[in-house]
Amino acid sequence: MPPQPPHPRCNRRDTSGRKKSKMCRWLGYSGAPLPLEELILKPKHSLIDQSLESRMGATTTNGDGFGIGWFGAKETPGVYRGIQPAWNDSNLRDLAGHIESPLFLAHIRAATGTAVQQTNCHPFRYKKWIFVHNGLIRDVDRVKRDLILAIAPELYPKIEGTTDSELIFYLALTFGLEESPLDALEQTAGFVEKTCADQGIDDAIQLSVGLSDGKRLLAARYSTERHSRTLFHSKSMRALQQIHPHLRHLSPDARAVVSEPLSDLTDQWEEIPESTAIIVSGGKVTTHAFTPRFPN
Amino acid sequence: MPPQPPHPRCNRRDTSGRKKSKMCRWLGYSGAPLPLEELILKPKHSLIDQSLESRMGATTTNGDGFGIGWFGAKETPGVYRGIQPAWNDSNLRDLAGHIESPLFLAHIRAATGTAVQQTNCHPFRYKKWIFVHNGLIRDVDRVKRDLILAIAPELYPKIEGTTDSELIFYLALTFGLEESPLDALEQTAGFVEKTCADQGIDDAIQLSVGLSDGKRLLAARYSTERHSRTLFHSKSMRALQQIHPHLRHLSPDARAVVSEPLSDLTDQWEEIPESTAIIVSGGKVTTHAFTPRFPN
Amino acid sequence: MPPQPPHPRCNRRDTSGRKKSKMCRWLGYSGAPLPLEELILKPKHSLIDQSLESRMGATTTNGDGFGIGWFGAKETPGVYRGIQPAWNDSNLRDLAGHIESPLFLAHIRAATGTAVQQTNCHPFRYKKWIFVHNGLIRDVDRVKRDLILAIAPELYPKIEGTTDSELIFYLALTFGLEESPLDALEQTAGFVEKTCADQGIDDAIQLSVGLSDGKRLLAARYSTERHSRTLFHSKSMRALQQIHPHLRHLSPDARAVVSEPLSDLTDQWEEIPESTAIIVSGGKVTTHAFTPRFPN
Amino acid sequence: MPPQPPHPRCNRRDTSGRKKSKMCRWLGYSGAPLPLEELILKPKHSLIDQSLESRMGATTTNGDGFGIGWFGAKETPGVYRGIQPAWNDSNLRDLAGHIESPLFLAHIRAATGTAVQQTNCHPFRYKKWIFVHNGLIRDVDRVKRDLILAIAPELYPKIEGTTDSELIFYLALTFGLEESPLDALEQTAGFVEKTCADQGIDDAIQLSVGLSDGKRLLAARYSTERHSRTLFHSKSMRALQQIHPHLRHLSPDARAVVSEPLSDLTDQWEEIPESTAIIVSGGKVTTHAFTPRFPN
Repeated sequence: MPPQPPHPRCNRRDTSGRKKSKMCRWLGYSGAPLPLEELILKPKHSLIDQSLESRMGATTTNGDGFGIGWFGAKETPGVYRGIQPAWNDSNLRDLAGHIESPLFLAHIRAATGTAVQQTNCHPFRYKKWIFVHNGLIRDVDRVKRDLILAIAPELYPKIEGTTDSELIFYLALTFGLEESPLDALEQTAGFVEKTCADQGIDDAIQLSVGLSDGKRLLAARYSTERHSRTLFHSKSMRALQQIHPHLRHLSPDARAVVSEPLSDLTDQWEEIPESTAIIVSGGKVTTHAFTPRFPN
Repeated sequence: MPPQPPHPRCNRRDTSGRKKSKMCRWLGYSGAPLPLEELILKPKHSLIDQSLESRMGATTTNGDGFGIGWFGAKETPGVYRGIQPAWNDSNLRDLAGHIESPLFLAHIRAATGTAVQQTNCHPFRYKKWIFVHNGLIRDVDRVKRDLILAIAPELYPKIEGTTDSELIFYLALTFGLEESPLDALEQTAGFVEKTCADQGIDDAIQLSVGLSDGKRLLAARYSTERHSRTLFHSKSMRALQQIHPHLRHLSPDARAVVSEPLSDLTDQWEEIPESTAIIVSGGKVTTHAFTPRFPN
Repeated sequence: MPPQPPHPRCNRRDTSGRKKSKMCRWLGYSGAPLPLEELILKPKHSLIDQSLESRMGATTTNGDGFGIGWFGAKETPGVYRGIQPAWNDSNLRDLAGHIESPLFLAHIRAATGTAVQQTNCHPFRYKKWIFVHNGLIRDVDRVKRDLILAIAPELYPKIEGTTDSELIFYLALTFGLEESPLDALEQTAGFVEKTCADQGIDDAIQLSVGLSDGKRLLAARYSTERHSRTLFHSKSMRALQQIHPHLRHLSPDARAVVSEPLSDLTDQWEEIPESTAIIVSGGKVTTHAFTPRFPN
Repeated sequence: MPPQPPHPRCNRRDTSGRKKSKMCRWLGYSGAPLPLEELILKPKHSLIDQSLESRMGATTTNGDGFGIGWFGAKETPGVYRGIQPAWNDSNLRDLAGHIESPLFLAHIRAATGTAVQQTNCHPFRYKKWIFVHNGLIRDVDRVKRDLILAIAPELYPKIEGTTDSELIFYLALTFGLEESPLDALEQTAGFVEKTCADQGIDDAIQLSVGLSDGKRLLAARYSTERHSRTLFHSKSMRALQQIHPHLRHLSPDARAVVSEPLSDLTDQWEEIPESTAIIVSGGKVTTHAFTPRFPN
């Protein structure tokens, strides 16, 4: 196929003319146990396929860190995070080849200001929850302290890194993520927007998030500017089958959520609309409005 | 052969029977410009001499990170921090061989709970100040949020890591380190002690600190339990000459401050007493009482 | 206080007065599938227990790298190698918690001259074989080229690092390790000894090796000077049970091979004599003389 | 400026249709002492400017490693090499800000098969020589052993990594680089071409090299296929002045050699022709034919 011209979204300025941040990419899987490598490494346009530039996202191929979180052998999920170029990380390769999981998240980081270090890679983990994020809090340094203050005191010491993404996760935990994850995220977005507005910061938050407790896979797509990072989910098992014709492990309830489709055939992928969250469980994908509100 | 009892100095319990943390080591130099390697690498018992275990400090030789901060070519100091075994770090070796400085600090980290990553290595830097610390805040997770709250809002976003050492530095900056460093450190110790006492934490702080703005080299030795990490300063140029007979660069005002002497001949090294701070400038060492007080 | 003399075990000179290298440590397991963490992380005196210095081996606790190789989900073994302090490596922790294996090797490296980098960590892998080594080739730089020349041309490009350990592995592969591993190792030792003797190098090789193809666990203890690194195997399941009373996974055929016992109760551990190799399979441990001979 | 369409050279297939390797980038400086950062970090289109993709070279911005070698305080050059994203490496930033040098090389690596590790980064150093390379030896695994054999036995143990670039350097040292560097490189190219031809490998070598002993800066541009990586040198001090109008350090003899120009104004940059070497000294640039020949 002849080289594609850069996708309009690769334009480094966003709708308001402001210079756009680089973007992370992530994927989530839910279904019968699958070796991690089947989605993370093997597909032609896998998450870490370095032969193509991201068609809809970041310009860097290597990223500033890579991570996977998976459910399986234990009650709590396992996490692997590293700052080596993902495609060249043999530890990752072996781990992804030797671990099967019915529910996992993978993420390539594009740093937006904070250090490239393992503790700043996604997914973040708290008890049985894992969380990945593509996006940012605008001018976060001006509101970081206020956001930190809102985090429950007993949660605060658990924070390992310095990213806005981890902040978002811990705010959501504070607002009840463990019981009502989507509601907690709506409160988080609302809180961040109010806090930013108080500082005169527009377009406070870009949220493309994936999270799971091992039972369900949740995702949300929202941004204050209503021009969010892309997010897709597969419509049926066929979407993944097309990536991997030889993949016999696939179950009918196999679903993936991705920041960009893993293949060229986009009719198998449904774009998640703006201000929308989804819950994936047992092959079913339910859609929910995502409406930020200031916390109680 | 039956297992040997731990060496007395390796006694992992302190005077109160509580299990002792591992210890960092650091050194500071003030005098005519000296190639960094002359003190950091070359001496037989240099900071990173791995052939001997630390006689008074940490049990691990490699440490959990290494860093140097130096004044020289620019107004602001340069910093190099890494998590590789220091003695095996060729970048460090080359940098230390090619940089001369009239004032520098070097530090080997022994992690006490937070991640081994570059942003958690010392020295920490703020504008023209660099800062190293050997010690800890006891049970810091229980008071971390309160300590963070006390840091000036405009300073908070500058924090890059997650150590108690960096917290101490930023508290001191909040309490006026840039104008009155020793007074700011006294207020820091006082604030930490009060905050810990409120949580029922005894023996709140262990402070062996080194800091500089390029003009003077300051150090302080204090602990709530009045049983502090060791700290020494050289009495005269001869202390350093004995380490390095061939060292022709040494000036009469050359002084070093060290967590343990760089040589066996201890009569050239003066132990800094408990609850004492020193200022080294132009070869003169002035002594000051270090008395924590709660901030205004 | 005057400086303490080095602890006798820390004596850095060996029987011939020559300065002794630091030592690696390793362990191997064979039996019913066991979560890797049960032996690598959890025991009080696990391979990476940093609260005690090695009672019989290296002086550094952290090592210069850590690695595990395990058999399980695939035909070929998985390998994880890293240069972070093993006890502080959360990726390792998670991987070891989420992977069960009936046969695995783990290794802490103490570098003897070559770079601390992932490609120089053990285990080394070739097809379905994994290999760890504690020891060295004396003055290897003087014979390295000759040893390299002896490696089969088609094998040579597979070498990823620069250690003598990896050299030993590839020499053994050249001499038929895949068909007759112990014989190949004997030829390797013989070849190295001859090559070194030709250069006037005494005490050519220190060999404490562990290797496996997933079917059997093999180990050998040999040194030219007949004063080899220690090596033990457990006598029965009880040795591992004593480490882990709560461990219900243990099967009667569970065996471990270790460079030093994992517990204080040494009657459960049998020392492998000098110039001896063992094969562990199905709970049986067979002993074989290890006699180097120059290759055909 | 509107986004440029990819430069024809970014086409991932070369003249023979074979898929092209990713490409390294490098620069060299010769002139009055200049802080390294002035050329390596500060210019709008510096070596590690991550806001633009390379217009003529690699597609990845971060690279698989970064290194600088500089002459200055000592007889032998200093070297800094790292595998962190160069633009995010604060150690590099500080070092480049605090070191001035009259002659230095910098290099961003794009790995072509061997591990991403510090020992595989350029520049490579031997005594007072430093060496960077953009290019490759085609199908090097098939000839690596033969090339290794040709390296002088006393040089072989100095090899630290596993790249073809380092091989080229050590072959050149074997063929007399220290006395006649350009002649040694011609013999190296000739030897590699013959060795590859014997294995039926066409288009054996891509050579864009920079090297220096601190006295002169040398570069060569050659490839078997006569379609080499680009290489430019500045015509006069003005080329660098245009990059940095405020740069008062520049001397009339300041020259740079670059794999791509540091600015848009290409009339200040002279392309080095195919099969050509240059020597830069005291502001003078002399040109020499580069003609590979099989070694004596």
